[in-house]
Amino acid sequence: MRIALDAMGGELGPEEMVAGAIQAVGESDLDVALIGDEIILNSVIQKLSPVSPRLQVIHASQSVSMDESPFEAIRKKKDSSIARAFEQVKKGEAHAVVSAGNSGATMASAIRSLGRLQNISRPGIASIFPTLKKPLVMMDVGANVDCRPQHLYQFGVMGAAFSDNLFKIKKPSIGLLSIGEEGGKGNVLVKSAHELFRKSSLNFIGNVEGRDIFQGNVDVIVCDGFVGNVCLKVSEGLAEAIITMLRTEISKSFMAKMGYLLARKAFNNFGKKVDYAEYGGAPLLGVNGTGIVCHGRSNAKAIKNAIKVAAEMIRSKVNDHIVQLLSESKNDIPSEEQGDTEIIGPGEVA
Amino acid sequence: MRIALDAMGGELGPEEMVAGAIQAVGESDLDVALIGDEIILNSVIQKLSPVSPRLQVIHASQSVSMDESPFEAIRKKKDSSIARAFEQVKKGEAHAVVSAGNSGATMASAIRSLGRLQNISRPGIASIFPTLKKPLVMMDVGANVDCRPQHLYQFGVMGAAFSDNLFKIKKPSIGLLSIGEEGGKGNVLVKSAHELFRKSSLNFIGNVEGRDIFQGNVDVIVCDGFVGNVCLKVSEGLAEAIITMLRTEISKSFMAKMGYLLARKAFNNFGKKVDYAEYGGAPLLGVNGTGIVCHGRSNAKAIKNAIKVAAEMIRSKVNDHIVQLLSESKNDIPSEEQGDTEIIGPGEVA
Repeated sequence: MRIALDAMGGELGPEEMVAGAIQAVGESDLDVALIGDEIILNSVIQKLSPVSPRLQVIHASQSVSMDESPFEAIRKKKDSSIARAFEQVKKGEAHAVVSAGNSGATMASAIRSLGRLQNISRPGIASIFPTLKKPLVMMDVGANVDCRPQHLYQFGVMGAAFSDNLFKIKKPSIGLLSIGEEGGKGNVLVKSAHELFRKSSLNFIGNVEGRDIFQGNVDVIVCDGFVGNVCLKVSEGLAEAIITMLRTEISKSFMAKMGYLLARKAFNNFGKKVDYAEYGGAPLLGVNGTGIVCHGRSNAKAIKNAIKVAAEMIRSKVNDHIVQLLSESKNDIPSEEQGDTEIIGPGEVA
Repeated sequence: MRIALDAMGGELGPEEMVAGAIQAVGESDLDVALIGDEIILNSVIQKLSPVSPRLQVIHASQSVSMDESPFEAIRKKKDSSIARAFEQVKKGEAHAVVSAGNSGATMASAIRSLGRLQNISRPGIASIFPTLKKPLVMMDVGANVDCRPQHLYQFGVMGAAFSDNLFKIKKPSIGLLSIGEEGGKGNVLVKSAHELFRKSSLNFIGNVEGRDIFQGNVDVIVCDGFVGNVCLKVSEGLAEAIITMLRTEISKSFMAKMGYLLARKAFNNFGKKVDYAEYGGAPLLGVNGTGIVCHGRSNAKAIKNAIKVAAEMIRSKVNDHIVQLLSESKNDIPSEEQGDTEIIGPGEVA
């Protein structure tokens, strides 16, 4: 199996991308195609590792920056690393794409090259949150900012298929993110989506609230991409702020510093639990193919893990499961023309 | 000055409410009217403190529970503690209301008894977030789940007036919560609101993201009540989860436990920084009067602080400032009938 890596994406530069690819190749039987400027990439490879036949470089002369408009980027930069990566999948020369670059452009390229899965109106981005118990799948976290109820319903189906195939959770429980547990609580969008889920054959447990995200009592949480992206960034910002505040307090006294040294292993274990690098990245779901967008600040380990998750998504046939689950769980959802998809990705999502 | 306290609200029971009132009376020159079942309240007062002439009990035979529908509650329970509290203000016998009860019912009672401020279409609930630098005012956090752009604009005006009067910040900076910093990023609502702010004379700094909330670089963050309530609860849930995870890790080894003991003061200082009780509660803004909703789990200290904040809101004339700032900052916002207000409060907001 061969994974195409957008080696020009990410804030840490091609060295980190290549290092992640080398680790993935070393720990698995996967091939990785590094897509980007061949002069840069070959020199990084030579610096980091002996030449491996399972690591190939495919040239792309352009790259998309983090703050570029996804639409302009895919229209104007035909030879960008992200466009070339999906082209590899389209031509059957790679099985999946991993990118730590502009997530909107990644989603737009995926849809343009590979299209959508059958009966999916809006592909979206799922994110895996660490919780007190087991990993949680949240969808959408940034691709679709203005949604209709049936889009939320489809996010639930896609999230459930992913949760089942990747985390081996049978009939994953699905919660709808709202501001109160009763079905009547929420905005107009959420109230209508609640009805669709309630009538379906999915394992819908009703509304959940923001504070339920980290408890680990639900497998999949559904929300629109605006709310999901805000949640993701609030969580990231708060976790960083809490660590900064604790560090500041600890640095104020000698006793506290000694205490920190003694408890350091506990802090490190805690750090691992909330480290996004452990999960690799956020899968694009609903696309007729496989793609993973990684955090812009992804290090080699995150890239390695994302490459492995991409392979696992293909092996476990997540997409077949999505199509099947959507047809099984179907209720009287008004059918919708597929022509209205509009992906508005933020600069960075995971 | 006299503050009416809904002494039947809150999850910890009337003892905690009365204790908070006693502390407030002890530390200030305020009077507190305790509204609720007079038999219960008088017995609690006798148990906790010598009788003070600055602490009065006003009987109300009913109380509203946390999960009751706000509309049914205000329609059916004419003699509830929260309704009687606002009646005190309406009759000029108290200056403000503090409640740790059902926030939706509190908001609905406030609007029903006191009405709205001039030109405010939707009163809302502001919340004060601790950050790495200074307190942040976020509005709305749960009263209005489906908003129009001009509602968000008014939330900005109200938040700025509060931030100026309570935290003495001149021309507070206002950010609009979105999923990217550029004006073109966000959902339809946020994009339109961005234009209104941009054209106004307010100190609008543009879009901010979820991770900016805790940095303390902006004074007021504006969002609709659905997104704001989700942010509040995600933050609360994550902070609790992080503390649980750290405790679990620390309890696993003797060394780590010793370390924790040495660093305990640092942990306690940190705890104070993120303790909502320090800020007392969340002010209702846009109502023609003064009210504060407190966290359902408010302890005596939180109630005491909320009573003091309510008094400070009256002394510093926040409402006059809101009306003045709204008329000064006015741009070509389409005027709107005041008749469409509909408050949908969640069970608990702060």
